[in-house]
Amino acid sequence: MISKLVDKIVNTGAPIVVGLDPKLDFIPEAVKTKCFQEKGENLEGAAEAFWQFNKEIIDNIYDLVPAVKPQIAMYEELGIPGLITFKKTVDYCKEKGLLVIGDIKRGDIGSTSEAYAVGHLGSTKIGDKVYRGFDEDFATVNPYLGSDGVKPFISVCNKEDRGIFVLVKTSNPSSGEFQDRIIDGRPLYEHVGEQVEKWGLESMDGAYSNVGAVVGATYPEMGKVLRDIMPHAYILVPGYGAQGGKGKDLVHFFNKDGLGAIVNSSRGIIAAWKSENYKEFNDGRVGEAARCAVLDMKKDIADALASK
Amino acid sequence: MISKLVDKIVNTGAPIVVGLDPKLDFIPEAVKTKCFQEKGENLEGAAEAFWQFNKEIIDNIYDLVPAVKPQIAMYEELGIPGLITFKKTVDYCKEKGLLVIGDIKRGDIGSTSEAYAVGHLGSTKIGDKVYRGFDEDFATVNPYLGSDGVKPFISVCNKEDRGIFVLVKTSNPSSGEFQDRIIDGRPLYEHVGEQVEKWGLESMDGAYSNVGAVVGATYPEMGKVLRDIMPHAYILVPGYGAQGGKGKDLVHFFNKDGLGAIVNSSRGIIAAWKSENYKEFNDGRVGEAARCAVLDMKKDIADALASK
Repeated sequence: MISKLVDKIVNTGAPIVVGLDPKLDFIPEAVKTKCFQEKGENLEGAAEAFWQFNKEIIDNIYDLVPAVKPQIAMYEELGIPGLITFKKTVDYCKEKGLLVIGDIKRGDIGSTSEAYAVGHLGSTKIGDKVYRGFDEDFATVNPYLGSDGVKPFISVCNKEDRGIFVLVKTSNPSSGEFQDRIIDGRPLYEHVGEQVEKWGLESMDGAYSNVGAVVGATYPEMGKVLRDIMPHAYILVPGYGAQGGKGKDLVHFFNKDGLGAIVNSSRGIIAAWKSENYKEFNDGRVGEAARCAVLDMKKDIADALASK
Repeated sequence: MISKLVDKIVNTGAPIVVGLDPKLDFIPEAVKTKCFQEKGENLEGAAEAFWQFNKEIIDNIYDLVPAVKPQIAMYEELGIPGLITFKKTVDYCKEKGLLVIGDIKRGDIGSTSEAYAVGHLGSTKIGDKVYRGFDEDFATVNPYLGSDGVKPFISVCNKEDRGIFVLVKTSNPSSGEFQDRIIDGRPLYEHVGEQVEKWGLESMDGAYSNVGAVVGATYPEMGKVLRDIMPHAYILVPGYGAQGGKGKDLVHFFNKDGLGAIVNSSRGIIAAWKSENYKEFNDGRVGEAARCAVLDMKKDIADALASK
């Protein structure tokens, strides 16, 4: 699966993933009003507004980027109706030719991790037929439970040609509380990075592994070290834009050939229409603003990589 | 919320939580056949079989135990139909007077953790009304992202009188890979335990905190140390029964008054009807076998605590 992502990055020239993390605050009043009228001013109406919002964004960016990353928490907040929109979003993105990274940060022990892996990346046989729960292409995975928690995901990746990104160093301010603690002279995230590289050798697909890593844009120096520790891991980089990461912070996450990393932006793209930087779209043109924001981000990263 | 759990433990005399972690393999053929006939041999049919199976267990154990712990992964494996069964199970257990611990092991950065917390423990205001996504009483939380990931859950606990159990030392064989690594002379899980105690002081409810901890029955010596490090944390103990933990391994997780811990068993109870130990129920009497298994577990723990 990682080779498909690499091909799409090369073809689009955009090592960018759009985070589809809707919130009611990001959605224009007119859209919400219409959805509430149609489905009720309740969880169903809110989930419909998420769907309409996502669809407008997807329709405006699908030709520019290789992948999207819906954050499942935003949908889980709305219970079952929200998760129906999550699933609809995954399916629609795939129809449009986008790869889908389910940002689910799951992780549990053996057979339970297997259930998550099957539900999100794999398939279940019932009777003579095979069914898929959510059917993303990639999922994010939490490593705290160790190999038993991660390997069931890798088995499913190998069986179904899918991929994962394991949390190594997250973009948030308190990520250092445990991740930066020193063990045998090196921070925990480096030990996790080493394991990611090892796990990844069990699922190689071209020059990279189906086992990638999450490393926050907000920690560029750590990204540099981790790039070396995990030569076969594609790095998914959150934290660009709204969380403070800039193009120039990202160069060390990439290899010399401009590959090896893919950068996520969520709010900076999906809520661009509301921002000062895109004033011309403040009247509610979500999709057009998202498209401009993607193009600007593409240029920012390309410029940074060119002057590396 | 933790005071409600403590009251129920005292009233039932059973520091036991039943893990509602259905699998198709655990469900009698006759039940599956009926559900597949009614709903189709597909995800909907499988989810209906989960529901019928859960209902039979709940109806037979609700008067014996204070709480249940559905493992959401098992339901996510079946996609949306599975999650509809998860929600139905949560609602039904609450109707029956059981507290519900959602074993969701979520954890993300700030606003994303907040979305999970709201979806599982809290409520969303849409228009003038308040809606709840999944509405469990407690949720399990992964600490790898640090305080930013955990505190949004604590805010919701304080606002809505709910609780969490943070993963400290998990029951699986490879949990030591990261959790046991030595930092400043002590294993990572002790540092996480210290944080749990600190976080917990922000959400006290009687003698204990709404912020509890998960510590596997399979590591009794570590349980002993963690009991002291986290005097205000209730300990949720998985790993009893099928994973190898026995009553005598559990004594150190409890305080002298017999409180301070609650022990989970999943397969050992819900699949008791299939086991050698409960031969008389091998013909498919799921509920009666579950009831016997709960009573046996209650006795095993009581005997162990009595001889402490």
